[in-house]
This record gives sequence, structure tokens and C-alpha cells, in this order.
Amino acid sequence: MNRVSSTPPDWASLPRSTPGIAAPEAGPVYEFYRGRRVLVTGGLGFIGSNLARRLVELGADVVVVDSLAPDCGGNPFNLADMRDRLQVHIADVRDREAMDALVAGCQVVFNLAGQVSHLDSMVDPFNDLELNARGPLSLLEACRRHSPDAKVVYAGTRQCYGRPLYLPLDEAHPNRPTDVNGVNKLAGELFHLVYGTAYGLRTCSLRLTNTYGPRQLMRHSRQGFIAWFVRLAMEGRTIQVYGDGRQRRDLTYVDDVVDAFLRAGASDAADGRVFNLGGSEPIALVDLARLIVAIAGRGQVELVPWPENRRRIDVGDVYSSYAAIQQALGWQPTTPLAEGLARMIAYYRQHWQHYVP
Amino acid sequence: MNRVSSTPPDWASLPRSTPGIAAPEAGPVYEFYRGRRVLVTGGLGFIGSNLARRLVELGADVVVVDSLAPDCGGNPFNLADMRDRLQVHIADVRDREAMDALVAGCQVVFNLAGQVSHLDSMVDPFNDLELNARGPLSLLEACRRHSPDAKVVYAGTRQCYGRPLYLPLDEAHPNRPTDVNGVNKLAGELFHLVYGTAYGLRTCSLRLTNTYGPRQLMRHSRQGFIAWFVRLAMEGRTIQVYGDGRQRRDLTYVDDVVDAFLRAGASDAADGRVFNLGGSEPIALVDLARLIVAIAGRGQVELVPWPENRRRIDVGDVYSSYAAIQQALGWQPTTPLAEGLARMIAYYRQHWQHYVP
Repeated sequence: MNRVSSTPPDWASLPRSTPGIAAPEAGPVYEFYRGRRVLVTGGLGFIGSNLARRLVELGADVVVVDSLAPDCGGNPFNLADMRDRLQVHIADVRDREAMDALVAGCQVVFNLAGQVSHLDSMVDPFNDLELNARGPLSLLEACRRHSPDAKVVYAGTRQCYGRPLYLPLDEAHPNRPTDVNGVNKLAGELFHLVYGTAYGLRTCSLRLTNTYGPRQLMRHSRQGFIAWFVRLAMEGRTIQVYGDGRQRRDLTYVDDVVDAFLRAGASDAADGRVFNLGGSEPIALVDLARLIVAIAGRGQVELVPWPENRRRIDVGDVYSSYAAIQQALGWQPTTPLAEGLARMIAYYRQHWQHYVP
Repeated sequence: MNRVSSTPPDWASLPRSTPGIAAPEAGPVYEFYRGRRVLVTGGLGFIGSNLARRLVELGADVVVVDSLAPDCGGNPFNLADMRDRLQVHIADVRDREAMDALVAGCQVVFNLAGQVSHLDSMVDPFNDLELNARGPLSLLEACRRHSPDAKVVYAGTRQCYGRPLYLPLDEAHPNRPTDVNGVNKLAGELFHLVYGTAYGLRTCSLRLTNTYGPRQLMRHSRQGFIAWFVRLAMEGRTIQVYGDGRQRRDLTYVDDVVDAFLRAGASDAADGRVFNLGGSEPIALVDLARLIVAIAGRGQVELVPWPENRRRIDVGDVYSSYAAIQQALGWQPTTPLAEGLARMIAYYRQHWQHYVP
């Protein structure tokens, strides 16, 4: 079997994306996917579905698997208009027989299946362990046995760092997660690296920060605050921000995240590596809430005291350095925050009933 | 409920242990355990049983739980002569009802249950996940609900560091385990820290290096090389050392490890902390093998090429700095290597049939 990475592109010379446009149509990283069989786990979810759609546009042979686990981000509507252009399998990555069949013949695997709610991980830590530790391990076992030449790109999280000892967070920052989700996501990432070292699988991980954009779950508030803020504003309700609202975050628009996955999946320079993503200049949550209200043209912002269960797992100011992936893969975020939010809000205006019950 | 740590001892003033004697009988750390109810998970195993025996000597009300999981270190003989001086429950820490009952009323929990074989973790990574990640999480959930004031001390491992970037390893060294066991043991440790931060449980972890001594499993070779070397020598067989045998390790005699657990369990200064243990001056494996042969008076040493499955997960020279626990808890290893090995070999001469089938 040929290794898919035999002709790595020259990353430093790749054209930068134009702001507001997800990625250029040309360039070796995008040509790379034409005709290749690619698996996206968690592919009916927020980031997975945006990635799958982009892969279809690039001419890849796309296979999506998603378990539609309750309260996770899987939503069949996310790919409903693409049904005839890709395969969608409803299966759990922990289902050995299903995964053995699905990974066979895949040249790139984007491993995005998982549970992202920090709060849910504290309420049911065993479910989080199943979805975020056993899940990735199952996928890796399937790849080791049935697709040992595949490239595997994992969706990690900056949550593995915990409360920052310094800012911006770089990849050398100690891992001291503050919730069960952070521990399990870190374990999932480390399994990928172990399978790289021990079995020669070509694996890497992207540590995502706060991703936002179309197709994000907004049925409930437990999967990241951005979609919830957007929903509240669009409903004309009040966005409550905890404390003084000055805690700062960086945000990445989903098309930029998709671009990072595409680059990591196509490049040998990513093998065995862990890369932070990053985004806009860090913004205070109260300022973000006000920006969302301004763009939505509805809603209002209110400061409220910290609820105890959230205060205990909050991590204060958090933002990441993306210098390492910029150097290795030429990636950088390109979508200005106001523009990304405007596109997100426009999407939900059009498709509201598919995201809000 | 009173917090058991209301009168922390003055650690800096604690007497040092005398070489060859496990720990002084006097001193606040040892007085601390008199009459206290203490749970030891994995208490029929190597370190657990030595710890339980010492706790009985110190007057504690000792409860041992062990699942006697196949191929793990649990051996009923380890506590057979103590049956009327402590409680032994055969149960799995993942058994919620059993653990809810067992943790209730315990003031200190030593959480040593787990699977320690690196090779087994690669053969059956899911079993390792169950024993080393779900196991600790189950114990912590039981403590959170039924014994929230208990102190919980976890048996971590220096395996979480992976291939050393520098030596000696200190606690700030990045965590990049090279096998599934290292990932799961790290997750188990991080769960303890998360339950400390999120729920106020008083938790800490000791990162053990190569522990040796009486009551160690020697039925097979997959649980650390020291006991296996000792068995081969005592049987008059050949100890095969991989490569040139110059890879160096540090070793801790089990009584010194027990002393570290006792200090960590009794001290508020350990709460939320992770401490390396350490041992003798690092010794090359070939020199260790020769020392064992000399003390046993039997066996021989042979250098052989690396088997591929072991070479891939080997980590080269490894030894740890114990400066942090020395400063915080006054602990240091006190048993010279030759003396510890002599005591170990004397023990197995007397009880051989209970350890070698």
C-alpha cells in the first residue's frame, strides 16, 4: 500500500486564506484530498460536518460515522443536503465490527467523535470516559489492525492545560485539566501519540480552543458558551455573563478549524505532533456578548455572580499561541470575529428550526 | 465530621528513618494512624499488602479491598498471617455498591488498585482502561458521595513522563507516556486532582519508580523486571538483559514506598500535589542483574538483542528526583540497594511456593 504522504506539499509556500473565505481552492493541501477515501468520526457534529462538507467540495470520497449520542452535537440536518455526495453511517466508534469495516481503505481519518461538555463530564464521568477515552482507543485499535497506513488526526482541546500558569498557552504548558472531560480528552490524545510511537501509525492532535460557526449545537447551554450566547441574543433574551465578564477567550471560526484539519491530515510534518489552534485577539466575555447582541440586533447583556459549580471548574483568562502550527503547516486563523459571528447568525436565521426545538 | 488533618505534624522536624529499618515507631506521622479507619485498595498486591501490614502495626483499623484480577499482583498469602487483624474484602473498585459501603467512615484511602504491566496494556488496552482509568474514577465517585472528608492517596507512576527529555525526572517534566498503561495511569492520577479541585477532596499522587521487595508478583515477567530477575537468579537460570545493559534505573525498596504513603496520607502538605518517589543511585541493568546473582548466590547474566515489541516502548535511562517530597514531607529512601535485595531474597527463600507455581 502506498503511504498517502509520499509527496508532501511545501507548507511554507502555501497561499494564505483570504479573510472571509475558508480556504483557497488551489494549492497542494487541497489537491491532496481529491479522490482519497477519508473517514470523519463525529461527522454529523458541528466541526465534523463542516469538515465533511469541505472534503466533499475538494473531491474526496467521504465516509461519515456518527452515533448521534444524546446531548452531543450530532445533527442529521448538518449533512442533509449532501446525502448523495457522501456516505453517512450511524454507528458508535466503540463498535468494533462497524469500525473495522469503516476504517478499511481509508487514507485519512479525522477522529472528532466525542463528548465536549465539561459540565456533563462531572455529572456522568463514566459516560465521558466511554465517549472520550474508550472511543478514541477503539478507533485506534481499528486503524492499527485494518488501516495501518492511514493518517489519523485527533480533535484535542486546550482544556487539557487547565488553569493557565502563563499566557498565551503553548504546547509546552503543563497538562493539569480541571474537569473530567479535560482528563479524558487528554487521554484520547495521548492514545494517538502512543499508537504512533508503538505501532507507527501517523497520528497527530489539534488542541482546539473555542470554536464557533454554523451547525453548532444550540439545543442546550452545555456545549460551549458561544452558540448559547448567539441563541439567547437571537431569541431577544438576556445573556448572563459571570462575574465582571472580563475573563478573556480566543475564538476560532469553524472554517479556519477545518482548514487546520485539512493541513494536518495532508502533511507528514504533523506526524507525532500536538498543535494548538488559536483565533482572534482574546476578547472579554462581556465584550463578546455585546458584540453578538449588536450583530444579532436583539437581546441584552447582564452581569451575574458565579454559580458555584461553574466557578470551581472555570479557568480564568485563556488563550492559546498557534505559533507552532503556523510554522509547521502554515496555518493561521483568517476569519475576523465580527464577520464569523455575522455568518453564524445568518446561518441560524435561515435554519433556526433545525437547531432550536 | 472532623477533618482528620486538624493537627498536621511538623514535617521538617520528623526523624529520618534508620537505614534498614522501615520507619521509626515514634513520631507524629505514625501516631496519626492509631485508631483511624483506613482503606487500602489493591491491598492484597505487592505494595498494598506491605502498606496494610504496616498500618496494622501502627494501630490503624485497616480495611483491604482487592479484586484478585487475573495477572495482577493480588495474592491472598500476602496477608494470610494477618487475617484476624484486618478486614479483607474481595471486590472490584468498579463495583459501586461495594465501594459505597467500604469507603464510608474511612479517614484515609490508599488507592493502589490497578494493573501495572506495560506489555499487557498494549495487548488488551481496554482492560487496562477499565482497571487503571475507570477503577480510580469509581473509587473517587464513591469517596465524593460517601466519604468526602477522607484523604485519598493515589499510586501513580513515573511512566507518565515517557522518554525523558532530561534527567533526573522532576514533577515538571512533560507527560508523554509511551504505552497505554502510562496514559491510563496518568488519567487515574489526574482524576484525583480534578476531584480535589472540583469537590474539595483531599487528594494527592505518588509517582512510583521501580519498587522491589517482599510480596511482589513473580509468577510471570510482565510486572516489572526486578522480581523477575530475582526469580531467575534464585532458580539458577540466566538473566537476559537487553542491549548493552547500560540503561540505568532507580529502585525503591517497598518499605520506603510504604513510608512515603504513610507520610502523604497524614499530611495536609500533600493535598493537591504530585510527588516523585526515587531510590538508590541509578544503576545499570546489567550491574543490577549481577548484584542480584551475587546476593542470591545462583544464576548468571547474559546480554541479548532488544526484542522489537519491548524496544518500541522502552524509555532508555530513567531516574527521578525526589527533592519535592523530601522538602514537603521529609521523605527520603533509606534502604541501601544491596540490603533491600538481600531482604527480598531471604523472604522468597522462606515463602517460595506461595509466589512461584
